[in-house]
Amino acid sequence: MKLVSFVIDGRPGYGAVKGDGVVDLCRRLPAKSLRALLEADALRDAAALLASEQVDYPLDAIAFAPVIPDPGKIICVGLNYRDHVAETGRTVTEKPALFARFPTSQVGHLQPIVRPAVSDHFDYEGELALVIGKAGRHVRREDALTHIAGYSCYNEGSIRDWQRHTSQFLSGKTFDKSGAFGPWLVTADEIPEPSKLTLQTRLNGETVQRTTTDLLITDVPDLIVYCSTIMTLLPGDVIVTGTPGGVGFKRTPPLFMKPGDTVEVEISGIGVLRNPVAAEPAA
Amino acid sequence: MKLVSFVIDGRPGYGAVKGDGVVDLCRRLPAKSLRALLEADALRDAAALLASEQVDYPLDAIAFAPVIPDPGKIICVGLNYRDHVAETGRTVTEKPALFARFPTSQVGHLQPIVRPAVSDHFDYEGELALVIGKAGRHVRREDALTHIAGYSCYNEGSIRDWQRHTSQFLSGKTFDKSGAFGPWLVTADEIPEPSKLTLQTRLNGETVQRTTTDLLITDVPDLIVYCSTIMTLLPGDVIVTGTPGGVGFKRTPPLFMKPGDTVEVEISGIGVLRNPVAAEPAA
Repeated sequence: MKLVSFVIDGRPGYGAVKGDGVVDLCRRLPAKSLRALLEADALRDAAALLASEQVDYPLDAIAFAPVIPDPGKIICVGLNYRDHVAETGRTVTEKPALFARFPTSQVGHLQPIVRPAVSDHFDYEGELALVIGKAGRHVRREDALTHIAGYSCYNEGSIRDWQRHTSQFLSGKTFDKSGAFGPWLVTADEIPEPSKLTLQTRLNGETVQRTTTDLLITDVPDLIVYCSTIMTLLPGDVIVTGTPGGVGFKRTPPLFMKPGDTVEVEISGIGVLRNPVAAEPAA
Repeated sequence: MKLVSFVIDGRPGYGAVKGDGVVDLCRRLPAKSLRALLEADALRDAAALLASEQVDYPLDAIAFAPVIPDPGKIICVGLNYRDHVAETGRTVTEKPALFARFPTSQVGHLQPIVRPAVSDHFDYEGELALVIGKAGRHVRREDALTHIAGYSCYNEGSIRDWQRHTSQFLSGKTFDKSGAFGPWLVTADEIPEPSKLTLQTRLNGETVQRTTTDLLITDVPDLIVYCSTIMTLLPGDVIVTGTPGGVGFKRTPPLFMKPGDTVEVEISGIGVLRNPVAAEPAA
């Protein structure tokens, strides 16, 4: 099942994808957001409605929102593929490098991602994102996948010069609308092995990153174990698992995203997250 | 005016402090949280009720919640006092080092902060926190203070060995209930000059950190300028401005917080944030 958050007629909602359309679940269920649906543990209700109901809108009538517009946590993992660690000149650490983004930094599928006025070092990072479906602390590796509601694509867009203002990445990682999350959540039953996916990032149609997710240094179950040792993972929390090699700022010459470009992150079994790049509007 | 978030009879609420008691604002205003009060720009309504209404509960009848229990962003500033930069062996950076905490990492005044089972390197960090009252992007220095609703104390509790698992601090900064935020929000009209405050941290009554806020490397207005260049600051967002020298892990021998301890952060014009230290309950 593919679950999508959207805005239609100025109203936020969510639904299930059926062919080229959407069954509006927000109108039919008590939960008023996809996060609330996960908190209510109501994926079964969603699946029943997907089976019984007709499409309400064609997909091209909705404005895609970030898959989870209002996550309690967006936990990003840095330096989690060896080729990316190598291109940055760093060394592999035993533990995953965690940092955060704030929800205001993300947009949905087809919405413009925004290059800020203060920098032209706007870089792509194609990543696999997972969304928590079941709360947990001190989750064991063998139980980890049962805590995942599903998967999506993430473009963890980064302002490289600001990311390197200090040792801490956050400044370059949470510019307004600098990242994208979508197009939808593919529920975990359709992706039993998240280590067997292929990920590609394309800039203006050219492939700039390509990996398979078996190359993650800390794999999906171990990320759940590590993060849940620190904090209680809650439904709707997002873990963005890291980007492979090929980022723009380590190329010669550097390859940055600029207004007018189109960037795509495609993951097998999930789909394509596509975003135009826009300039920040004048203040 | 002192505004406080609390739980009473299992119900979350907020109110204004009057003498030794609280006027319940949550029962009397449409806004159902202190964040919502700020979003509604309704501090004037709060002040009117504080003047006209009687106390509903004595202060010792409420369970203090974090001042803002559900901020959209908790932006922490690292290495923002020279004596702390020096004790960590780092060098002063031109820009502030930003990292995040998640809301689940904070508790209110008098609630136990929790030392996790996986570490005994649990360290205090007394800090001045500010809460945004008016949304803003690209805020100018001369306007910065007008965006602040008020100030509070923050104990930015840190798990030092986890903080140093990698280059990124987040892992050691967001353990469940490892930090504290309180006791209340003192509105900005009572603190016209946030650079003229005295901050003290005490562990079991002994002063372990002491500074004046004029020693901040990046001061409060410039933090607003820098953060709002990156992201739209929204009502209820929290900026935790950094800790001075004297942290426990740089002492010889190291001085860590342990179950049974009491830790206090006192800031002139605000009050005392006091928390007992507890062990993480067995899983």
